Amino acid sequence: MYSRNAVIGMTLFATVGAHTSAFAENDAEVIRKSDIEWSNSAQSKDVDTWVAHYSSDAVVLSPNQPAASGNEAIRKTIGGLLGLPGLSVKWRPLKVEVARSGDIGYLHGTYELSFDNPNGGRIEDHGKYVEVWKKQPDGSWKCAIDMFNSDVPASQ
Amino acid sequence: MYSRNAVIGMTLFATVGAHTSAFAENDAEVIRKSDIEWSNSAQSKDVDTWVAHYSSDAVVLSPNQPAASGNEAIRKTIGGLLGLPGLSVKWRPLKVEVARSGDIGYLHGTYELSFDNPNGGRIEDHGKYVEVWKKQPDGSWKCAIDMFNSDVPASQ
Repeated sequence: MYSRNAVIGMTLFATVGAHTSAFAENDAEVIRKSDIEWSNSAQSKDVDTWVAHYSSDAVVLSPNQPAASGNEAIRKTIGGLLGLPGLSVKWRPLKVEVARSGDIGYLHGTYELSFDNPNGGRIEDHGKYVEVWKKQPDGSWKCAIDMFNSDVPASQ
Repeated sequence: MYSRNAVIGMTLFATVGAHTSAFAENDAEVIRKSDIEWSNSAQSKDVDTWVAHYSSDAVVLSPNQPAASGNEAIRKTIGGLLGLPGLSVKWRPLKVEVARSGDIGYLHGTYELSFDNPNGGRIEDHGKYVEVWKKQPDGSWKCAIDMFNSDVPASQ
């Protein structure tokens, strides 16, 4: 009796474990696609479209400015980015990984960004980014941390 | 019989869930303490001590230089940082979170960094960082992604 229960318990545990791994792989693909869609939709340069990818507790950690946390600060930061004259921005994930429990994932990738220099010509930048994603109560994935920095040497 | 098995199964599942949450809280505390110890031990300015906190698949994403992945590239990047004349560097985590499954965690925090300016005086910097931590096969936690950027406006 006890051994039979133990077997049933072990089977249940193994089944839960297998499902969890499968979910994690599927979740990684969901996050990867969400990030690519985010980059594509950023071409609209619409602040609402951009910030819809953030969780309610998100922080945006941009270079050379303080951390932006909370809806107002994040909208200001993203609005400033999207308002750059002649902005071109795109990014793509290189690696995505999700915890076995399917509640937290992260990715890192590379970005390209350019905009008009007020003094003429273009300012060209490229670099890397990290995002932490969290599964929301409704099952959707949102970005809770968004950080990037440049590969280009700082001007002296 | 079946309903009794179902109850046993549910109890097992609930127990696994409760343990997982408790582990996640404990793991968050382990990661927080590891990060604080890392900052403290960085005062030795010893490259080996610093890089011992990275996983074998770690990437270090420093501002104004390409991503460093692999032991050699990471040692070069950290060696460059620790070799800055009169370097002072410290950091502290603000928020740590771990997946329920206890395999992936992340944190973000703030850093302070200063070093001697070759032209005289000190260069003072402060900013923010994100780390992704992964539990290793031996149960220890290592940093798999280490990224930071400055709060200070870029010089023009």
